[in-house]
Amino acid sequence: MGGDHGPCVTVPAALDFVRTHDDVRAILVGLEDRIRPLLGNADSSRISIHHASEIVAMDEPPALALRNKKDSSMRVAINLVKEGRADACVSAGNTGALMAISRFVLKMLPGIDRPAICAVLPTTHGHTHVLDLGANVDCEPEHLLQFGIMGASLVSAIEHRERPTVGILNIGEEDIKGNEVVKRAAELLKDSGLNFIGNVEGDGLYKGEAEVVVCDGFVGNVALKASEGLAQMMAGFLQQEFKRNLLTKLIALLALPVLKGFKKHVDHRRYNGASLLGLKGVVVKSHGSADAFAFANALGRAADAARTGVLARITERVAQQQPLQESA
Amino acid sequence: MGGDHGPCVTVPAALDFVRTHDDVRAILVGLEDRIRPLLGNADSSRISIHHASEIVAMDEPPALALRNKKDSSMRVAINLVKEGRADACVSAGNTGALMAISRFVLKMLPGIDRPAICAVLPTTHGHTHVLDLGANVDCEPEHLLQFGIMGASLVSAIEHRERPTVGILNIGEEDIKGNEVVKRAAELLKDSGLNFIGNVEGDGLYKGEAEVVVCDGFVGNVALKASEGLAQMMAGFLQQEFKRNLLTKLIALLALPVLKGFKKHVDHRRYNGASLLGLKGVVVKSHGSADAFAFANALGRAADAARTGVLARITERVAQQQPLQESA
Repeated sequence: MGGDHGPCVTVPAALDFVRTHDDVRAILVGLEDRIRPLLGNADSSRISIHHASEIVAMDEPPALALRNKKDSSMRVAINLVKEGRADACVSAGNTGALMAISRFVLKMLPGIDRPAICAVLPTTHGHTHVLDLGANVDCEPEHLLQFGIMGASLVSAIEHRERPTVGILNIGEEDIKGNEVVKRAAELLKDSGLNFIGNVEGDGLYKGEAEVVVCDGFVGNVALKASEGLAQMMAGFLQQEFKRNLLTKLIALLALPVLKGFKKHVDHRRYNGASLLGLKGVVVKSHGSADAFAFANALGRAADAARTGVLARITERVAQQQPLQESA
Repeated sequence: MGGDHGPCVTVPAALDFVRTHDDVRAILVGLEDRIRPLLGNADSSRISIHHASEIVAMDEPPALALRNKKDSSMRVAINLVKEGRADACVSAGNTGALMAISRFVLKMLPGIDRPAICAVLPTTHGHTHVLDLGANVDCEPEHLLQFGIMGASLVSAIEHRERPTVGILNIGEEDIKGNEVVKRAAELLKDSGLNFIGNVEGDGLYKGEAEVVVCDGFVGNVALKASEGLAQMMAGFLQQEFKRNLLTKLIALLALPVLKGFKKHVDHRRYNGASLLGLKGVVVKSHGSADAFAFANALGRAADAARTGVLARITERVAQQQPLQESA
């Protein structure tokens, strides 16, 4: 029910996703009388509605949503995951509330202290997974190690990569090279058995220097949002120049296929769907402003994670890790 | 002598800058026999060479440069500022060494604990000043307050703005809203008498939400470099699409004026020149890879700072601040 557009985006996206993925069933959780009309005459064998009477508002304090809205669509959807009646929950709603409710209902996987938000960013030659992007603002080195394990597990599961490269986001000034937490986290990652490649600077994110990049949620969130802001600004400048006069507008028409090709590279909708990793259940957060195309990508990520057993992979890697850490 | 290109970029840039700015004299510090030939038949009345026998390498550890290279061009140039024989020092060399030597030779302004790197970033409708961008990786709230005072002083001096707006870089998740340092720094800024507008998220940097944005050097450096990386990647994608085939190459030719206009908006060379604020002297760091156009912009920033009395402005604002803080 959440997100900026509500069911009029999420329901058609789900319908379309089910239609194009034979192994998927969708349970649409929320106000039945809002959802039902949107189903139209869709073949309902793999689509069902699960009524929930409340909605968490986008600006609602997470603690209140957790305490007061026991029958919110978000809470009920996560309950379905907890009960094993759904393999994953996807929401475009309030991030803080989704995090708080998921953590409360599902609990953490053994050996993981905190959930982390993991998203995919485009790089010059592919993409990279970055975590945490905002769930944890003050991290200890051990948390960054756990993020590395979770990120590597995710990539190895869904992309069938045995030992994905893992880097740590850092700065490059010679005399300071990062703060104490990052320095100690790098030591832990080095001894972890992960394919740790060391520091990645801000620009290295987009050069694809590592398949997984870990950072604390404050830095990650700022880097992600700064990138979004810059991309929007650049797109705006390009548009502005093409709209300058009749001639430039004509050139824009001619250049349309080129601009479309360009836009496809940096279309954030293709990268929609951040995984809330570390929980005993698959939870994926879609951008609130997602359209049906973007939301379908979030659904795809959730389906991939459920299908490829990401949670089992994380649990296994953490277990492998414990003896290492204890013997250190 | 520093930077990726050395005097063959910095000397022509200085010559040109002096030619176009009647009130400026340039002292070229470094190996005389490398610099002299580059002067050609330039009118030398406002250009002089000050010989220095050593060069700090770009990858030299700052502590070693500080201890061992007493006659480096960097050290000698900063000495000239210290002795009042130059109003400002501009270097494209090793950032860490420039910072260490400046701090050692010039010392800090009264009431300022640490230097900060302040750069200008483009926004959708102008530009913004952001600090710190890498000098301080672990900041206390008081340091962020000082960054706010320094940034506001710089903007009010060089842009003749009485009360520039100041924001603090933060993240927007409802339940966590930033780490403890940022929260306490926001309190200090609120009580500072500065025109503090509160939190600015990563994307707000490029929306120009504040004329000055403060952050710790770790976050600032990551945000800046991530932005650089993303801008490069986007420019690369655009180029790639225009080079796809003969037709797109033809369209690129037609679109050349538009693309030039676009490039001008995001040309990082226009924003070259980061101020090392908080020192008893004007020191400006140029990007190591700067060309003559970019280096001239760094020279312009240094001249502006010297001309408009930024240091006196900072000192004055800090002094105004002290009673406020003590009475608090």
